[in-house]
Amino acid sequence: MLKQFMVNEEDAIMVQEAPLRETVITVFKKMGVNDADSALAADVLVTADMRGVETHGVSNMLRGYIAGYGNGTLNPNPDWKIVRETGATANIDCDAGLGIIVAPKAMEIAIEKAKNTGVGMVTMRNARHMGMASYHAMMALEHDMIGVSMTSCPPGVLPTFGAEPRLGTNPIALAAPADKEPPFVFDAAMSAVAGNKLGLARRLDSKLLPGWVANAEGEPIMEETDPPAPGYEGPASGYLLPVGGTRELGSHKGYGLMAIVDILGGILSGGGYGANPGRPNFGHMVAA
Amino acid sequence: MLKQFMVNEEDAIMVQEAPLRETVITVFKKMGVNDADSALAADVLVTADMRGVETHGVSNMLRGYIAGYGNGTLNPNPDWKIVRETGATANIDCDAGLGIIVAPKAMEIAIEKAKNTGVGMVTMRNARHMGMASYHAMMALEHDMIGVSMTSCPPGVLPTFGAEPRLGTNPIALAAPADKEPPFVFDAAMSAVAGNKLGLARRLDSKLLPGWVANAEGEPIMEETDPPAPGYEGPASGYLLPVGGTRELGSHKGYGLMAIVDILGGILSGGGYGANPGRPNFGHMVAA
Repeated sequence: MLKQFMVNEEDAIMVQEAPLRETVITVFKKMGVNDADSALAADVLVTADMRGVETHGVSNMLRGYIAGYGNGTLNPNPDWKIVRETGATANIDCDAGLGIIVAPKAMEIAIEKAKNTGVGMVTMRNARHMGMASYHAMMALEHDMIGVSMTSCPPGVLPTFGAEPRLGTNPIALAAPADKEPPFVFDAAMSAVAGNKLGLARRLDSKLLPGWVANAEGEPIMEETDPPAPGYEGPASGYLLPVGGTRELGSHKGYGLMAIVDILGGILSGGGYGANPGRPNFGHMVAA
Repeated sequence: MLKQFMVNEEDAIMVQEAPLRETVITVFKKMGVNDADSALAADVLVTADMRGVETHGVSNMLRGYIAGYGNGTLNPNPDWKIVRETGATANIDCDAGLGIIVAPKAMEIAIEKAKNTGVGMVTMRNARHMGMASYHAMMALEHDMIGVSMTSCPPGVLPTFGAEPRLGTNPIALAAPADKEPPFVFDAAMSAVAGNKLGLARRLDSKLLPGWVANAEGEPIMEETDPPAPGYEGPASGYLLPVGGTRELGSHKGYGLMAIVDILGGILSGGGYGANPGRPNFGHMVAA
């Protein structure tokens, strides 16, 4: 991890996995989530921390989830259901259930379908935050399968040459078994840096590097700069750039990959894409 | 397209589509390819030119294909066959047939499977050059399906922090229908620039931009530079970088995406990955 995102040792408070997990379970139960789903949600968050993915761990995410349960944008008891289905596919209406709880269930469906037809692909609409995308992809590993997951996020990233955010950071994750070696696991936002990395940088008072964000006119900032103001809507001091940063360095490729995630996670799920007004928060796709 | 890759008007020789197509068909027939396959090969090459993808059109590719038929690395009459099959998947041994001819047949199989199960995914081993990857993905459009294609290429790209090429340029293509709008079509190497773009730059005597290639020690060259010497094996003056260019700008994401293509196109097909000694030239994956 780049030093911009590393917590200073003197600021760090170390906690053990087991009590952290118990605490998180207790918090989810308090939000009205049932016991099994609370344990699952805690596993997703704590697994992220244990893998060093602090952007999507307890300290960076739980606060937002609590706020969501509090203001009604998250449903603690979602009546999620399969809306359409074929031999190798399914489409789920998540009923505003938190993605870290519903996506693992969708991935189980994908794995079962893959056992039968060779591929299982499940899209999710009316969905909420997926957490660390690779958690769901990695579920395929114990079945000796390749897992994929991606999520179409609210817009915070500029298209190449654009000045208004039209795309989410739209991560793609893939996990592949590797026999006696550790599995291959990829999980990355298709923006130059993940949106949650900006939150980390703000907390740590770090500068951003050249090519990560643009100014309010959409021009890539090619020198060190402060993180843009939080919140993607309303006045912000700047926006994230696609991976590649500038057109010359290939930002059109990051732009296209984010659009692909919007298509497979957003439009194909029936949930809409990043810039689509009134869309639900997130659309996901998982596959085995 | 960046000016680095544009032919000067005074050097350009314009030809019409129909006679170009006839000429290419005649050349393939002369190589021993049957009538239907010759027409298909010409359609792939000419379609690339008509879409402005000169890297993968007649002038840049046909010469190499002729050499391949001449030296026996390309089989003009491949006995390609399905080796393994499930409801939603198939694996094809291409018998050293040219990818621009075999991949469309594989895509037809993927489309038929998608009609039945919702997804069709076909991997190809013992395969040769796929041409413009999006040709195959776009075949799905007339069936109102999303098409995907990718190809694991011989190594010419450095991993992040690496000094030896371990990955192919490994393009990913996706085509999605868009009702009354033109379809969405993405097709890009996961290197900073496509390998064939270096050939174009050499022909046009263009400089490469910062962040596209590294020097022989693997250090990204962050100023304008001449294209590296042709040929990826043996002494080269430099190698391609992943999209992103440097670690700070996100080259680890390009590196990971190239590895994903090696997994889905190379390893899953049974053909091996970019750096695997003795592997056949290419492994492909197409899906609908």
